[in-house]
Order: sequence, then C-alpha cells, then structure tokens
Amino acid sequence: MNTAALPIGIFDSGMGGLTVLKELAQRLPHEDLLYLGDTARLPYGTKGQETIIRYTLKAARKLVDMGVKMLVVACNTATAAALPSLRAHFAAIPVLGVVEPGAQAAVAASSNKHIAVIATEATIAGGAYQKAIARLCPEAVITGRACTLFVPLAEEGWMDGPLVEGIARRYLEDILPLTGCGEKTHNEPDTLLLGCTHFPLLQDAMRNILAPQVRIVDSAATTADCVAAELRLRKMARPTPGGEHRFLTTDNPARFARTGSLFLGQSLAEGRISLVDL
Amino acid sequence: MNTAALPIGIFDSGMGGLTVLKELAQRLPHEDLLYLGDTARLPYGTKGQETIIRYTLKAARKLVDMGVKMLVVACNTATAAALPSLRAHFAAIPVLGVVEPGAQAAVAASSNKHIAVIATEATIAGGAYQKAIARLCPEAVITGRACTLFVPLAEEGWMDGPLVEGIARRYLEDILPLTGCGEKTHNEPDTLLLGCTHFPLLQDAMRNILAPQVRIVDSAATTADCVAAELRLRKMARPTPGGEHRFLTTDNPARFARTGSLFLGQSLAEGRISLVDL
Repeated sequence: MNTAALPIGIFDSGMGGLTVLKELAQRLPHEDLLYLGDTARLPYGTKGQETIIRYTLKAARKLVDMGVKMLVVACNTATAAALPSLRAHFAAIPVLGVVEPGAQAAVAASSNKHIAVIATEATIAGGAYQKAIARLCPEAVITGRACTLFVPLAEEGWMDGPLVEGIARRYLEDILPLTGCGEKTHNEPDTLLLGCTHFPLLQDAMRNILAPQVRIVDSAATTADCVAAELRLRKMARPTPGGEHRFLTTDNPARFARTGSLFLGQSLAEGRISLVDL
Repeated sequence: MNTAALPIGIFDSGMGGLTVLKELAQRLPHEDLLYLGDTARLPYGTKGQETIIRYTLKAARKLVDMGVKMLVVACNTATAAALPSLRAHFAAIPVLGVVEPGAQAAVAASSNKHIAVIATEATIAGGAYQKAIARLCPEAVITGRACTLFVPLAEEGWMDGPLVEGIARRYLEDILPLTGCGEKTHNEPDTLLLGCTHFPLLQDAMRNILAPQVRIVDSAATTADCVAAELRLRKMARPTPGGEHRFLTTDNPARFARTGSLFLGQSLAEGRISLVDL
C-alpha cells in the first residue's frame, strides 16, 4: 500500500482543533483528513498531566489503527503534555503538535520580545509555551495566563459583545495594555499568543479591548504551514487528488455538528461524523 | 458485618455534589461519608445519555465495591440519565437521586405552580425535572433553560459581581421576572429551581437580578432530608458515632481540594483526597 495515499490524522480533545483542520484544508486541498475529537472527555485543559497523556495515547492509537500517514495534535493541552510520549509510541509516522509552531509565530510577530501567552490551566501550568519560546529566543520575556472560561464561552457560541469583552478584560487587564490606557511603554507585551485552539473564536472581543499595538497570533496557520512543509520534505504528499474530510467523535454527533460549525465557519453535516469508543 | 456501620456513598461528576455532602453532614453528623467525584471526565452535562449512563455505572461500581450502605447520586445530570440503570444494577442497596427531591422542593415553594428549572444541557434535554414536577403536580407549568456557563463560572470561583449578573441576566431574562421590571403578573414563574449542584454558588448573583417574588430553591437540602428519612425507615443509621468524610477523585487532588473548598464553604485538606482510576 502507498502510505502517501493515507489521510492525515488530526487529534483534538474536542472541536477546537477544527480551526487547525480549516487551515490545513486551505493549504492542502488534495489531502484526505481524518479528525478525531474526544468530546466525551473534554475539556483536557483542567485535567492533570498523567490523565492527559493516557487519554491522548488512546486517541492516537485509534487513528493509527485506522491508518494515517501523519499525526497532527491540534490541541495545545495535549501537545504540551503528551507530544514526547506520542513520538515514542508512534515512531513510524511523523507527529506534529501546535506548541512549537505557535511559539515560532509569536517570536516572529514580536518586536520587543515581550510575549503574553494565554491558554488553558494545564497548558500554562505545564510551561510548554514558555519553554518553546525561550528555546527560540532566550532573551524573550514571557507572561502566561490561564483563561479557563474562554473554552466554554466559545463552545456556547458567545463570541462577542460587552459580556465577552468584560470577561476578556478581567483575564487580560493586568498582563497587557488595553485600549485607551495612555502611552505605549516598552515594558509591556506587544504580542498575544492564543495558546488554545478555542481562543481564535474570541479574537474580535480581545481586539476590541486591547491597545492597537498588541498583535494577536495563534498556532493554527503556522501549524498548517509546518504540516505542508513536512509532507514536502518527506515526499508524502498524496499522489492523486483526494480532499475527503471525515470526523470521529466519542460523544453526541449532533452536538459535534452544531458546535463544530462555529469552529469551521461553515456548516458541518451530521452524516460525516461517526461515533467511536476509545 | 453490620451493614449500618458502612459509609454512605455519594457520587458526583465533579465537585458540585459537595453542596449535597455539606447538607448531609449537617443532618447526619454521626454518619461516615465516602464521596467520589469523577473529575477526570467532567462535565457530564454536555455529554449524551448513553455516555453518562456508562460513566455513572462505573463510578457507582467503585463505591459499591469499596462498601457503602446507600448510594446518593448528588449530580442532577447523572440522576436524570442513569437512576433507573443504577437501581437495576445495584438492587441490594437504596439508590437516591437529586431530581425527585428537587422537584418536591419546587412544588412546595410555588404558589402559582409555574416553575422555571435551570440545569445543564443534558438535564434539560432529557426532561427529567419536567417529568418529575408533572408527576407531583400535573397542572404545573414548567419552563426549562440550560445555563451551560454557570458550571465553569462556579468552578472558576467567579460567583458574584456585574459580569456574573450579566451572564445570569442573559440566560434568565426571557423566562423569569427581573428586578425593577414593573408589576407582578400571574403568568410568570414564581419559583426558580436550581437543577444543578453547581448553581447554588451563583445564587446571590441570581437573587440580585430577579424580582423579589421569585423564590429560589435547590435540591441539596431536600435530598439530605430524604436520605435521613430513608436511613430511619430502613433502620440503617450508624450504631456508633462515626463522622469520617473521605474523598475520591479521578484526577488532580490538588485542584479538587482548591475548588472543593468553594463548594463546601470551608477548607478541604488535600490529604483527605485519594486519586482513583475507574
């Protein structure tokens, strides 16, 4: 069998990774994509490291057993906790995460190398982004903040308006310059890295409250660039046009279709979603 | 072995059931209590019925194997989905849920028998409260509303202030009379039933926005009354004073201790919490 004809496997704890799938589909329209969202056990972001590793390995095993040529971990929390374990367990295929690409995007965007990272509780506590940015740019100053409520807000579809801006203000006001708060100072972060795949949905609300000099970057686009580069490097691009997208969920396909549409920015038919047990 | 000397087992998807444990401890200070919170897989409230039943049976099996004389399901979502399955699987011991006691409390509190129920998405969609209230009071008018963000808000410890009141207003303004909204009408609910064990933590914020004639009731106190009555009826009260409280969690005891303290209203030592795998 020609390995290059297999789909790219994409794993996420839920539906946030669909923001990565969307970017992948734009860059690689001929590739088949097989997405697994472990919605029965989401959110991973409030769980301990051992639990996250255990769940991520089980999900990856499912995708590998179904046949994928590459594994993309489109979940910041799972990448931060489990990437080394995944690479050890599935050495036969490339395993890419979102943390390294996100760190690259933030370092490239920042002029003063003072970067604020927002993510789930587990990602911030594990320090993976802080370490990845420091490896790329040892003189960088990094401020981390867990924004726990952003995940359920995005899943509820509450993405803008005064309430969402108020919640964003409460999380961000003491780590970033806000709009209308006087002069720009060199000591403040000039870049906000969205270290969770749910957070791009709340980007407009954050933009409205943050000072204009703050750049907002996320890892979805950069991760998709890395996947495309890896396919070229390994000569693993699909030989004939495909472009089929399939979705697996561990719970409630109807909810996956409804909330998933928010992340994809287009409607997602329930018929393309299969329920699986891990 | 004297069965009456065993602890009462309390199950919840996470930490919300500690509001029930607190009421039980006040009424039954001599009873040992063994609490299991399935924090690794919370929240149950956004999952499908089959998944909730499967997880609840596994958790109950753990408590029964450890030895409990009664099982209290201190989780509205699990009660609504899984109580009949639990009673079928564990017929040797009494199994009590929170839905029936909550419905009793609401019917007793309401003068006009128009009751608003707020709960998780799964509880509202399953209709368990609507059915339980209708059984007790067939002429009751019941309005249900899923308040998905209340769970993460309570767990984040954001329990009052303008943001929380704003979120409560968005969920409640079209189902209940708000403060300062003119005359009382007979057509509106006069009782709000909190159909999720997390929601009592946000009660002050709801009180601030709701018209004064709206009574707020929850199932914790009534459930504890039912447990006490059941112990008397079955002559299962503990023969000698105990009063030990132990806690089991499926993830991250440190987080359980921190968030659990919010629900108990007093500090919870991490040393009393054991990690278990289901």
